[in-house]
Amino acid sequence: MKNQDALDRLKTIEGHIRGIERMIDNGDYCIDIIRQIQAVQAALNKTSITILDAHLNSCLVTAIRGENPDEREKVLKEITEIYETATKV
Amino acid sequence: MKNQDALDRLKTIEGHIRGIERMIDNGDYCIDIIRQIQAVQAALNKTSITILDAHLNSCLVTAIRGENPDEREKVLKEITEIYETATKV
Amino acid sequence: MKNQDALDRLKTIEGHIRGIERMIDNGDYCIDIIRQIQAVQAALNKTSITILDAHLNSCLVTAIRGENPDEREKVLKEITEIYETATKV
Amino acid sequence: MKNQDALDRLKTIEGHIRGIERMIDNGDYCIDIIRQIQAVQAALNKTSITILDAHLNSCLVTAIRGENPDEREKVLKEITEIYETATKV
Repeated sequence: MKNQDALDRLKTIEGHIRGIERMIDNGDYCIDIIRQIQAVQAALNKTSITILDAHLNSCLVTAIRGENPDEREKVLKEITEIYETATKV
Repeated sequence: MKNQDALDRLKTIEGHIRGIERMIDNGDYCIDIIRQIQAVQAALNKTSITILDAHLNSCLVTAIRGENPDEREKVLKEITEIYETATKV
Repeated sequence: MKNQDALDRLKTIEGHIRGIERMIDNGDYCIDIIRQIQAVQAALNKTSITILDAHLNSCLVTAIRGENPDEREKVLKEITEIYETATKV
Repeated sequence: MKNQDALDRLKTIEGHIRGIERMIDNGDYCIDIIRQIQAVQAALNKTSITILDAHLNSCLVTAIRGENPDEREKVLKEITEIYETATKV
């Protein structure tokens, strides 16, 4: 699916990362750089949530209401998997 | 729902936490204590995943295949919410 | 070191976990249980931070001001290691 | 400080994010996109750790061995703060 909100967020994040590269080039204070990286990570979390929300309300609902048990099992397993990874990154 | 696997995991975690309390009482090295706390958090993540997996395959499927749009919306929103919190704890 | 604040927090967390076990025993709603597990994890984060703060201001300062380069290297490496694990749990 | 390793990692991450933008443009599967975002977050964690490690071995050691108690307190407090944020993103 095309998710304009997620795309806009990623473009902003890309600019944010280029800003952090300049901070390193300038020899900025390490802790300030780490804080900016943490801000990018928070922005990436919001982007994931935007995409997950769209996914649940479209693909997941379609799969669960559909007649294919393998497809149903697959979409549910994927939710558990990304949740598992989310608790690790 | 009664989830015996999750219950067993929590009982083990409870014992683990009592062990960490004893480490503090004994004046153990701080970093060793922090590592044990992190091990408990990894065990709690696994417990959450066990419960989430059971939830998706029962309550969520029932709600989405059901006729109540409010209930459907509620269960989907809950998934997004716990994912959002998971990326913050 | 004996850290009474951390000890008190762990005792509260232990009670919280017993409460979650009762929720599972009662067949409470899965999402409510996951939310309580996430609350315990936030409380464990606060406990780690209490201990880390005490550690930095005592052991770390002593090691860095001391004359043993191996000890100095060890305490610094430990900080990086627990930070690395923290970004994964 | 100029940290070439961190800079190289950020340039790679920037390219990775542009790749994710193309995935969204192409209408790729949501879960695949979320997985790529999670991979970027893991790469950002590694970048932070590289910077933290350099910081501990330079600025932190200098501050703690120095004669300024305010500076000493500041660098220690910063470590606790970024650890606290790390447990939340």
